[in-house]
Amino acid sequence: MELAILFGGQSFEHEISIVSATTLKEKLRDFELTFIFCDQDHTLYKIENEKMKAQTFSGGAYKNEPIVSLVQGGILRKKRFGTERLQMPVLNLIHGSDGEDGTIAGVLDFYNIAYIGPRREASVFSFDKRYTKYLAQAIGVKVLDCEVLHKEGSRDVHTPFPFIIKPSRLGSSIGVSVVKEAEALEYALDVAFEFDESVIIEPFVEGVKEYNLAGYSANGVMHYSIIEEPQKSDFLDFDKKYLDFSRSARVNEADLDEVNVAALQENFQRIYSGLFEGALIRCDFFLIDNEVYLNEINPIPGSMANYLFNDFSSVIKSLLEDLPSGNTIHVDYRYIHTISAAKGK
Amino acid sequence: MELAILFGGQSFEHEISIVSATTLKEKLRDFELTFIFCDQDHTLYKIENEKMKAQTFSGGAYKNEPIVSLVQGGILRKKRFGTERLQMPVLNLIHGSDGEDGTIAGVLDFYNIAYIGPRREASVFSFDKRYTKYLAQAIGVKVLDCEVLHKEGSRDVHTPFPFIIKPSRLGSSIGVSVVKEAEALEYALDVAFEFDESVIIEPFVEGVKEYNLAGYSANGVMHYSIIEEPQKSDFLDFDKKYLDFSRSARVNEADLDEVNVAALQENFQRIYSGLFEGALIRCDFFLIDNEVYLNEINPIPGSMANYLFNDFSSVIKSLLEDLPSGNTIHVDYRYIHTISAAKGK
Repeated sequence: MELAILFGGQSFEHEISIVSATTLKEKLRDFELTFIFCDQDHTLYKIENEKMKAQTFSGGAYKNEPIVSLVQGGILRKKRFGTERLQMPVLNLIHGSDGEDGTIAGVLDFYNIAYIGPRREASVFSFDKRYTKYLAQAIGVKVLDCEVLHKEGSRDVHTPFPFIIKPSRLGSSIGVSVVKEAEALEYALDVAFEFDESVIIEPFVEGVKEYNLAGYSANGVMHYSIIEEPQKSDFLDFDKKYLDFSRSARVNEADLDEVNVAALQENFQRIYSGLFEGALIRCDFFLIDNEVYLNEINPIPGSMANYLFNDFSSVIKSLLEDLPSGNTIHVDYRYIHTISAAKGK
Repeated sequence: MELAILFGGQSFEHEISIVSATTLKEKLRDFELTFIFCDQDHTLYKIENEKMKAQTFSGGAYKNEPIVSLVQGGILRKKRFGTERLQMPVLNLIHGSDGEDGTIAGVLDFYNIAYIGPRREASVFSFDKRYTKYLAQAIGVKVLDCEVLHKEGSRDVHTPFPFIIKPSRLGSSIGVSVVKEAEALEYALDVAFEFDESVIIEPFVEGVKEYNLAGYSANGVMHYSIIEEPQKSDFLDFDKKYLDFSRSARVNEADLDEVNVAALQENFQRIYSGLFEGALIRCDFFLIDNEVYLNEINPIPGSMANYLFNDFSSVIKSLLEDLPSGNTIHVDYRYIHTISAAKGK
């Protein structure tokens, strides 16, 4: 089965994406994989499988690989004599901006290329944590209360200590701090505002249990991964999470009773249905007093959360069998004739 | 001043976009305009100014015009000897899908081309009427209650008659019906489901006053158009609205007192700020018992609502002076080295 892995991107998580891609190379051995690297300037390169290692990118050697471009229905590589047309579905594996903010979704939709990954609407609701709260509120999924601060605005915080500060639009814990006392506030805000124009502030619940659940829908049926209780100190900082992205070994299932498992899955489905079709996503939940709270939605989780599934190859195959297709609209110029007549042109 | 007008698109409003573009040709005479036509298959053509008339498109003559393609930073035209690179800002004038759903925004962002038009987030919140309600609810703007029905789901409606049925994701009154009695329901739903997988149902308020207000922000200042009270029968159907899109004459200002004008502008700003920067939008409001309700957001209004502004050329110039730019993210491969060391690769 053919599959192109699109990775890299103009993103703070560019490097994480490279790690995800090299991890999937191992996990999808029974696929015929084509690696398409998007550099930070949005130039696309086709990377030979044997060159899929960190040094190819960090040392700049990728620039010697063939440049490709997007055309209707596929990816085009110019050769000395003629062109090679790559025509296979794409797995969007660009984490953070570009990949998760709807840019790549828009581009692949425009070029009519089938892909695994969040569509534009799904991207907007998961990329910006403020909009995730709008969504959750509208569909009846609980979230923690939050305050929003803007870079140029007031720095008055009303949430009591301790609280957690997050840039509105980044994943992978970049720019995130737990603030336990007033003295630490200014610095934590400075750090977060390095990465975004707005930040959200949420109560930090000491010792809260966090649960990660991945899943997807294919042929009308929801499929869930095992549920993981991630190990953490206060929270996983970027370096720890970064190492985490290269994970490919399976994890231990969280020790939860059936009622809680069902509650997590029910919340997952409520979020996913009608919005995330075509994507494999991971939702991170809290359990507080036996109530499920959504923490965040990862529409392109690190290394596709492969470690949460028994048979990851089958997961990708089943997604590929049921990718959403854009609706084709036929234009017949019926109204142009009417209007031209009406205006006497 | 140079400006490219991007119009057409894979959209039910494809033809409206052509009318909008020919209207702007007249209204922006002091610009150096380049017309880029996106056909229903997403092939792009550069159309000579003198060919900007309905027949060029309805008769298929546009296919004789030169094909152009998008490249980083601009639009490329291949010539017999060498290439011509067009490097000017774009006015996204594609109504409906493609233009207003975030696809074109994603594409222009990816190619780093500056543009007037809604960004991806703004597109998602205005294109789908369900998401407009999520947004309004979150930012404290009143909207009418609504029910959502899905194509494959139940057709039980709980809203009392009369009510209005709208496809969730279309503009220009396409597929919209006012339903006054049970006998008319099935047909109205069939019509709406022709155009979308989901529909919204809102109470139809007999004789409600509707007010259209356009505006934009440039250099940190909000600018508002005059407020129009559109003439209507029950509501403007597609044919009437279609004719409306070619309007270029000024309209009569609605007869509203200062308090109501201020209330409409205050609601407009609440919707616009932090989300619609870079776009000129038109919000359609209701006034019910002196309370402002948002009906819908048009992020690319027909012929850019030029008829609501005194000096439309200046409006576009001022928007062009303050277009949002993507944040450039520098990738330094710091983490790749860390992870490679940690994994002993």
